[in-house]
Formats: sequence, structure tokens, C-alpha cells
Amino acid sequence: MALPLRRRLPVLPLLLLAAGGLRAAERSSSSAMEELATEKEAEESHRQDSVSLLTFILLLTLTILTIWLFKHRRVRFLHETGLAMIYGLIVGVILRYGTPSTSGRDKPISCSQEDRLFTTLLVNVSGKFFEYTLKGEISPGKIHNVEQNDMLRKVTFDPEVFFNILLPPIIFHAGYSLKKRHFFRNLGSILAYAFLGTAVSCFIIGNLMYGVVKLMKLVGQLSDKFYYTDCLLFGAIISATDPVTVLAIFNELHADVDLYALLFGESVLNDAVAIVLSSSIVAYQPTGENTHAFDAAAFFKSVGVFLGIFSGSFMMGAVTGVVTALVTKFTKLHCFPLLETALFFLMSWSTFLLAEACGFTGVVAVLFCGITQAHYTYNNLSVESRSRTKQLFEVLHFLAENFIFSYMGLALFTFQKHIFSPVFIIGAFIAIFLGRAAHIYPLSFLLNLGRRHKISWNFQHMMMFSGLRGAMAFALAIRDTATYSHQMMFSTTLLIVFFTVWIVGGGTTPMLSWLNIRVGVDPDQDPPPTNDSFQVLQGDGPDSERRNRTQQESAWLFRLWYSFDHNYLKPILTHSGPPLTTTLPSWCGLIARCLTSPQVYDNQEQLREEDSDFILNDGDLTVTYGDTTITANGSSGPHTATTSLDGKRTKSSSEEALERDLGAADHEVTSRGTRLVFPLEDNA
Amino acid sequence: MALPLRRRLPVLPLLLLAAGGLRAAERSSSSAMEELATEKEAEESHRQDSVSLLTFILLLTLTILTIWLFKHRRVRFLHETGLAMIYGLIVGVILRYGTPSTSGRDKPISCSQEDRLFTTLLVNVSGKFFEYTLKGEISPGKIHNVEQNDMLRKVTFDPEVFFNILLPPIIFHAGYSLKKRHFFRNLGSILAYAFLGTAVSCFIIGNLMYGVVKLMKLVGQLSDKFYYTDCLLFGAIISATDPVTVLAIFNELHADVDLYALLFGESVLNDAVAIVLSSSIVAYQPTGENTHAFDAAAFFKSVGVFLGIFSGSFMMGAVTGVVTALVTKFTKLHCFPLLETALFFLMSWSTFLLAEACGFTGVVAVLFCGITQAHYTYNNLSVESRSRTKQLFEVLHFLAENFIFSYMGLALFTFQKHIFSPVFIIGAFIAIFLGRAAHIYPLSFLLNLGRRHKISWNFQHMMMFSGLRGAMAFALAIRDTATYSHQMMFSTTLLIVFFTVWIVGGGTTPMLSWLNIRVGVDPDQDPPPTNDSFQVLQGDGPDSERRNRTQQESAWLFRLWYSFDHNYLKPILTHSGPPLTTTLPSWCGLIARCLTSPQVYDNQEQLREEDSDFILNDGDLTVTYGDTTITANGSSGPHTATTSLDGKRTKSSSEEALERDLGAADHEVTSRGTRLVFPLEDNA
Repeated sequence: MALPLRRRLPVLPLLLLAAGGLRAAERSSSSAMEELATEKEAEESHRQDSVSLLTFILLLTLTILTIWLFKHRRVRFLHETGLAMIYGLIVGVILRYGTPSTSGRDKPISCSQEDRLFTTLLVNVSGKFFEYTLKGEISPGKIHNVEQNDMLRKVTFDPEVFFNILLPPIIFHAGYSLKKRHFFRNLGSILAYAFLGTAVSCFIIGNLMYGVVKLMKLVGQLSDKFYYTDCLLFGAIISATDPVTVLAIFNELHADVDLYALLFGESVLNDAVAIVLSSSIVAYQPTGENTHAFDAAAFFKSVGVFLGIFSGSFMMGAVTGVVTALVTKFTKLHCFPLLETALFFLMSWSTFLLAEACGFTGVVAVLFCGITQAHYTYNNLSVESRSRTKQLFEVLHFLAENFIFSYMGLALFTFQKHIFSPVFIIGAFIAIFLGRAAHIYPLSFLLNLGRRHKISWNFQHMMMFSGLRGAMAFALAIRDTATYSHQMMFSTTLLIVFFTVWIVGGGTTPMLSWLNIRVGVDPDQDPPPTNDSFQVLQGDGPDSERRNRTQQESAWLFRLWYSFDHNYLKPILTHSGPPLTTTLPSWCGLIARCLTSPQVYDNQEQLREEDSDFILNDGDLTVTYGDTTITANGSSGPHTATTSLDGKRTKSSSEEALERDLGAADHEVTSRGTRLVFPLEDNA
Repeated sequence: MALPLRRRLPVLPLLLLAAGGLRAAERSSSSAMEELATEKEAEESHRQDSVSLLTFILLLTLTILTIWLFKHRRVRFLHETGLAMIYGLIVGVILRYGTPSTSGRDKPISCSQEDRLFTTLLVNVSGKFFEYTLKGEISPGKIHNVEQNDMLRKVTFDPEVFFNILLPPIIFHAGYSLKKRHFFRNLGSILAYAFLGTAVSCFIIGNLMYGVVKLMKLVGQLSDKFYYTDCLLFGAIISATDPVTVLAIFNELHADVDLYALLFGESVLNDAVAIVLSSSIVAYQPTGENTHAFDAAAFFKSVGVFLGIFSGSFMMGAVTGVVTALVTKFTKLHCFPLLETALFFLMSWSTFLLAEACGFTGVVAVLFCGITQAHYTYNNLSVESRSRTKQLFEVLHFLAENFIFSYMGLALFTFQKHIFSPVFIIGAFIAIFLGRAAHIYPLSFLLNLGRRHKISWNFQHMMMFSGLRGAMAFALAIRDTATYSHQMMFSTTLLIVFFTVWIVGGGTTPMLSWLNIRVGVDPDQDPPPTNDSFQVLQGDGPDSERRNRTQQESAWLFRLWYSFDHNYLKPILTHSGPPLTTTLPSWCGLIARCLTSPQVYDNQEQLREEDSDFILNDGDLTVTYGDTTITANGSSGPHTATTSLDGKRTKSSSEEALERDLGAADHEVTSRGTRLVFPLEDNA
């Protein structure tokens, strides 16, 4: 009731701000009495806004309480996100059928106008001027949709909210909480699954769906246009996997860490791939008359757009991460954790804005920013800021994720333009199954040719099974629901998300035991060699040597990067790593001394204890690179003492040094002796 | 560049969402080429949005780095908020004079229309329909202001952003971080300063300003209407003190804790009072022709509105706080800190929405919610959640506060409707000085009649000096800048904020030493009796007894509340306090056993150690109330061992018990022996 005169355009915090329904319902005819009436209506509208946001908070609160109950009772068949969807569904039903329809009150009028379009309209209503702002073009078919139930409209958010508010914290958190050790050890496979796999899946699903669409046209089930590009877009949208439920159970049961790394890494990166892929498909606009057929020039332009956006976004994220690392390194900001956390938050957020300002994809930039921050900046933060930043993003991630899932439940009933086509839906389910199969099995076969530690059959089946769809697919699908084809795609995506989260999520625990995937693993341990890989390693004598060589070659580039990172980037950007004075050539002495943090010499032990998860791979590496043998910090640590006791020191040079150091991180290795553990061993 | 088709109404995260300038600049004439052009423009607009938000992030980043430098060098003459304003000013100058004016492109057109007003307009431009939404009424004088520099418009936020996004975290944090012990010990005085003081200050400033306005009219400096209610509104706006800089220095130097509590408590509560006061003044609408003269009915209606809004908001905040406490008590949510923190966050936020939905003031509700959460819920949280919630709101508070102050600096140059009237400004400075004086000195005199521990002269001078204006005054002033008088008030408020933050903030350290206010105080200690109060206490023999009695009477109500809170509310709502089985009558046995947490019996020691700041006053109280003597938990703690050694046990009954217990919290007391320390001793 405060200052009611200003309540015309009520601005509610955070989310509602962007709600499409933020329009004050106002009418007037003349003089002061009407002004009061208008004020009353504006207040009423503001109240409705608050109520609709309260609905979501209530939903989330309920979800949290029920999750607690489930966790408390160790119920695992329903994950929090699945629960959020169920509550969303219930509230959606209530809103849809339980609230009176108030449509017609805000019926739009037409106002013909000269040839130009303006962002601001001034409308003269009986002597008073009212300002209107342009909202966007509206297709003639949608004009009737503007007449909607008031409450339903209030709970409908602008799709961009998902991209610009809810996804960034989720994605940043994914990057920031990446368990680097297992991620990097499987990086090659993860990249292959994420890039090749997503592209394969996108094209297979796209083509299968095009077949389905053709069939629908034959049967007469299609009432409007559905182009090949739409099918491809659907392929891109639905290729973004989000095994959040599976990973939660993995985490809880301490399931195999490598499988976890493969699944998590794939889902994180494939979100980025899917988002850029869908942009590229939208950017695919053949010139001339034949606007929806294949055109080589447009295709290559799309590929160019994909590469450009992806690498640009990647660079943006990496650059802000590096800048943050430098700032936190060269200031003593860590004495003031609040300032440090605030700076960290602002810099990470600015990545998003910077990428958007440059025309790249903010969400993707934020992912790589998160990875960079975890890799470099995290080492410079004070102990308090480390937990602060982690917790801050954890809370934001949790709220955003559950909000999206409860919104999904709600949208099934409150979204007013659903088009459910049984043929399309059944086709889509078959297509995503086939797409996933065509992505996992052949790729795993190819990867296994190069991997020393094979991806076993049960892992492949588990990955096949874990192809859930979630927040990213939803956000991509809801982004554009203007046309018939997009509406059908949106409705189908919703159903696929529901099905996979509930059925697949619920079946994870049985599936794990059925596939004999071991649980209760200490995440700092290596898995024992599975039967397959063990036999392969021991069985083929002459082959293994050749493969070893191939692998060394393919690993060469990565090893180069790895030692570069460890010898130069880490020491420059963080307080850890070997002193630059030892890694840089001697003529760089002065610069090296300036750039090397004094802490490098005395905080190595401390770092090792505090965040072993993050630096296990980096803190203790001795590399013979070029012609100088570099002995790094960690070698004198307690780990080396353990490993130097074993008698396996027969190999020579860099290979040997690498093994020793990485063995330091993986205690089991040396006792088994047959496997060489290299953090990036499988980059095929 | 992702999905450019959807970029028409770019939605940027958080703040920009509500920016007034979020209008895509679009024009079209016909066919596809124009669509592309439109898309380009929309993208351009989206880019500008990102850039403008980046500007603010850059500002905050710069501020953080400079603050660090200042803190590092122990520079105290400039506080972070002052710094944020300076950077804001610089960027404002650059934006104002450094960017090319692009006005005219979005020139509004008039479109006469029939008699009704709609929220949505559909405009037909050469066959295409465009949707416009109502933004609000615009006064004819403002029509030309719509033509603005594009960039300046982009950095101008909707005033409601301040109320609905930036203030709530600041205010909640204030409530949540209230140092309860010293706050409650001075509660009476704080309430008096906040309520009476703010009202007095508002009316004095209002009347003085009305004199100034009359003078301006005589001199011919006034070019438009300026009513008495406007003057009163100005009084309310400018009565919200915000001694953020002073308090920061107090915190850093560990200045006197009671003075800190007085200043902090006053500023927190007087924000709430000022906001409700200004709403009430706006609600003051005399009926009939004479709309801006005094009208008793309207006046009483305003007073009623004030009381209604204030008590309603208070209730809302308290109720959600209590609900959160109950939920966190009766679930084992503390096993999952993430869920707990998320729930805490959601419930606190829902207070705001609930209050707004019911027509109360969200910001005020959030304040009392914060206090309730700190008092009850905090005790139920897990150790991790305690630090998590504190840190979360600390970061949000820090960012929001510095954002507001840097926006203030920016607004001096980018706000396009400034009206600087030298007479009004000088008058305002004199008025706020006199208003503050008329508020502090007489009230302190009256309070000192009732206080045992007097507010000494140097404290009064310091309080007089600390009447800075900040975020709340700015937010209230910017809320409505539609009329001439409001614009003048806004410009004047800005200058007052600048002046007080820079000059007064910078002068705090010299002032502290000039006034001989002791620094380096252990916050858990009591201040030594100052000269004045000491003399008063010892000097007057017969009087003191009478006063003692008066005080006991006035304290009676509060003591009632205190024991009620301790014996019933705390045990019901939290895991601390005495078991209900001992405090409730025996016939409530079953209910008492259900409501009493099992932890009550064994977690007392733990609680004492962890958050002594929060429960020092509550954990160890023995009260003889009614006819049952209740011995509470803390009495057997280590503190009592210390105090029971002294020989001052001569008084009897409840007074004695109270002293012993509160003495347990205040070690110094018993050794001095002349002062009776009661947490609420001064509620005059």
C-alpha cells in the first residue's frame, strides 16, 4: 500500500520482473474517481503478481520439505526435481481449472498507424497521455491468444528468464564444481561424447523426426508447416542430456567415479554444444526462394557460426576467469573474504554479460568461466571465500534447478498453446532412444580402441540408460513457441522430460545393481580394472605396444598443454605450482621473480591439504619437458615417500616421471603395477 | 547471437530486467530485408543492455578493488559507499558528455483513440501486428523528456527496483545481523529515537521546508506548485538516517558498543518508520475541493494507515519468522544444510511477497522477519547453515548497498529532470540539521530521566553528528519524480546524501577522538560508567529509589514479554530454552513433552559456545515469575561459578535472580556493584 501512486507498473523482485504478465490492468474515463479506480486495479494487479510468485515459493518450500522426508527415509525412487515437477503439475491443474477466467478485460484494440514503427507510443485518452512500449511483433494467429486467463498469464514467464536468469547459475555451478581429477582423466572421451555424440544424436533425431513428419503429412495429422530445419532444431534441443537424478544417486551411493565423470562431463559440455548447435540451426537461412531446403553455403555458414560462437564463448569465459585469477593473486584481497566473494561473483557474472555484449552465448561462456575459476582462481581464494563461493553457487543452483522443474510441471497445464500429436510423440521417443544408442555404442567402441582403461559394456548400458532430458532441453524448447512446429516440439519435449526424469530417474538404483556397477567407491581411489579392460591389457602383447605409441602420440598435444599449464599458467595465475624462476628460461629472471607469488615457496603443504580434490593432479608433477628437467613442488610431499618405496622404477624419462607423480595421487596404482595411470590417458 | 529471432525483447538478468530502458528499437517497412534490419537493431539494443549492466559491474569491481586498497592501507576518511558514489559520478559524467546523443530515433508518436484505456495495444503497421504494453500515464510536461539519450536511458532503472530488489536484502541483513544483546539492552531508547524521533524530525523538517517554500514563492524562485504535503513527504524521506560509514568505522575501531547499538538500532528501525510514514503522507488525501490543506479526518486516516501498515508488516515478518522456526525445529532438515539454507532463503523472501500481497510494506516485514529469524530460527539451524545464511545475506547486502551508492553517483549526471534550487538546498541542509537536533537532544534528555545508564553528552553529540542519509532516503526520493516538487526533492536528497556520506563519513574518526569516545572495546564487555551517568547514579540518594520504582514499572511490560519469550516461545520455537515440561502448568504435560525438543536437555553447552552473541541474554536466565520459581538452563554453566563468588547477594527475589543471571553475561558488573544490568533496563 506504500505510495500507491507509483504502483502502476509494479516491479516484483527477480523473476517476476520478466514475467510476460507484468501489465497493470487499467482503464479510465475521466477525472479523479477513475484515477482511484485505476489505482485500485493497479494495486490488485500488483497483488496478483505477488501471489503468483508466492505460489512458486510455496512450491519450492513444499518440494524442499518433501525431499527432506525422502532423504531422511532414504527413498531413492523419486528425485527432488521429479518431485518439483509433480507439485508443479498439481498447482498447474488447480490454476487451470480452479481459478475463474478473467479474460476479455484486457482485450487489445487495434490502432492503425502510418508506415513507421516506434518503440514508444503515446496514446491520448480523453486528454490524458499514456505511454506504451513495444513488446514485439505478434503473428496474426496469436492475436486471440492474448485473451487469456489472468492468473495463467501471471504465472507464465518470459522464456528469456530461463536463459538469462536460471540457467547461468546452474551452468556456472556445474563448471565450478567439476571434480577435476576424474574429469581430466576422461577428458578425451568426454569431449568425444559431448561434441561428436551430440552432433550425431542431433542429426539422427532430426532425420528420424523428418521421417515422422513426412508420415504425419501422409496420414493427414499435420495441420501446418514443419520444415526440415525444425526437425534438426528439435534434434539439437532434445540432445541436451541432463542426468541430474542419476548423478544424485551416483553421488549418494558413491558409484563408480569414472562413470560419474563420463556422465557428468558429457552432460555439462553437451548442454553447451546443444545451445550453440540450436543457434547455428536457427542461423541456417538459405538465401533465395527455397528457404528451407539444403544449401551448402548456408550449411557452411552455420558450421562457421557454430565454431565461431563456441570458441568465442569459450574464450570469453576463459579470459574473465584468468583476469579474476590475476586480480585475486596480485591483490591481498583474501584478507577480506567478503570483498573477495563479491569480486568473484561480479567477475563471473560479467562473463555472461560480456559474452552477450559481444554476440556470443553467455551460458556457454559462464560454463568455461566456472571451469577456469575452479582451476585457477580457487587456489588464490581465502579459505572462507572458497566455502562461501561454493555455497553461494550451490544455493543458487539448487533454487534455480528446482524452480525450472516445478515450472515445467506447471507449464503442462498453464501453457495455453500445447499441441500434443501422438504420432510425433511416439516418434520422438523412438528417435531419442535410437539417437542415444547411435551416439553411445559406436563412439564407445571407437574410444575403446584408444583407451587403456576401457569403457566396459555395463558402463555403456548405464550411459545409454542415463540419457535423461532436463532443464536445458526445456529452456531451449520454450525459447521460441511462436509457430505450430515449435509448439508441437515444446509439448513433446515437456513429455520427454517428464518421462525420463520420473521413469529413468526412478529406475537408476535397480539399473545400477542389475548392471553390476559397483557402489560405495572412495572417490580418491581408482576403480579396479574391469574384466574387459583387464583382459585386453594383458591379452594382446604386440598390439598393446603399438597402441601405446598411438596413444602417446595422441596424448602429445595434451601433455604439452598440461605441462604448459602446470609450469607457466598455474604459477602466473595462482599461488601454487612451481616457482616461475625455475620454469622460465634464465633470461626471464626478473619477470619470473615478479610474477611468482612468494607464497609458492611456503604454502604448498597447506594447499595440498585443503583442496586436494582440486589440485591433486596439479600440485605434484615432475615433467621432463624439452631439455630441462623440472622438479616440482609436490615431489617432496608425503605422497612421494609412499610411492618411492615400490620397486617399479624401471622406465625412463618423462613417462616415468609422470607415472611416479600421478601414482602419488593414486595409491592403488603402483601396487597393481600393470596399469599406467595418466590423468588424460584416454584422450582418443 | 544465439537464437537471434527471439532477441526482440531481451531480458537481462536481475536488475536490468526492470530498467526503464528495456525497449528494443525497432522499425520496419516491409518484407524480409526489414526483418533482418529489425533483428540487427534488436541485437544492438540487447548489446547496449549488456554494456550498461557491465558498466555497473565494472563500477562495483573498481570499488571493491579500491576499498581493498584503502582497507589495506587503513585509510578511513573514505568509506566504500562514498567511493562507489565517486566512481558513479565519474562514469555518469562520461556517459552524459562522452556518448553521442541518439535521441529522435525512438521519437514517440501520438495516436488518438476512443474513450477506453487498455493494457495491450495492437498496432497494425503495413499488415504486421505489433504488441505494445501500457507503461503508465505520462504528464504532458514530460512528453519531451521521452526523447532522451539512448545510453542514459539504458542506465536508468525503474525506481521500483530499489524498493523491490535492492532494499530487501539490505534491510533483512540489518535485522538478521542485529547484535541482539546490546540492541535489547537499549531497546527502549532505540524505539523512542526511531518512532518519536523520526516523527519529530519529519514534522520539523516538513514545516521548516514549508517556510522555505513560502520564501521561495515570495522571491519568485518557485515555478510550479509545492504543497504542504510535499514538504511533509520530504521530511519523511529525509528522516531516514543511514549511518553506514559511521558504523563501519565503529566496527573497525571497536567503538563503544552501546553507542553502536543506539545508532544502528535507530537507523534500522527509522528506515521502517520513514517508509511507512511517507506512505501515510501520500495516503493523506483530504476529500473535497481543498485537497492540499489540513483535514482532521484525512489526518486521522493517515495515522490509522501508518499504524495499520506498520503493525501489519510487523506481524507478517514475525509470523513467517515463527513459521520458519517451527519448520526448522520439527524437521531434521539440519542434516541437509543446503535444503535448510534454501528453505530459509525462500521463507524470508516469501515474507516480502506475502506483505506486498496483503497490501503491507514488504521492506518493513522483511526487517522484522530478519529479527525473528535471528532470534528463533537461527538457533535451530545447523552450524553450516548458520554461516551459510549469514554469508549469503552479507554478500547480497554488500552488493546491493554498493550498487545503490554507485547508482546515486551516476544519477547526478544521468537523471535528466534535476531541479537544483539553491534556496531549497540550503534550507534543506539547515532543516535537517535542526530536525536532527530537535530529535536527539530533547529525546535524550527525556530518556535520561528514565535510563540508569545515561546517554552522555558526547554520545548525544556523536548521534547528532551521525545523522547521515543514504540508500533509504534515495530510494524513497526516486520513487516518485513525476512532479516539479518531487524532482526538486530528489535532487536535494541526492546532494544531502553526497554531502553527509563524504563529509560526515570522513569526519567520523576525528570526531570520535574529539568527543573522547573510547575505542577498542571488547563487544562482550560493558562500558565503564561514563562520568555523567556515574555521578548521577551515585549523587542522588532519595531520588534514585523513586526512579528505580518508576523504572521497574515501565519495565514491567517488557519483563513480562521477556520471561514469556524465554519460558514459552523459545522452547516452543527452538531447540534452546528451558524444557516446556518445567515451564508449562502440569496439566499441559503431554503437549509440553511433544513440543519440547529432546535436544533441549543436552545441547545447552554447545549452543552457548557457538553463538554466544545471539543467546547470551537468553540462555541463562532465572526468573521468579508469578508464583513459580523457574531455574533455567544456563544457571549451572561456568559463568555462574564466577559470579557466585562475589559477596553481593543481598537483594531478594526476582530482581536478585535477574541480576545474577545477567551479571553472568556481563562479568564487569558484579565487580562494580553499583549498577544493575538488565537487558532492557532503559525502555523508557
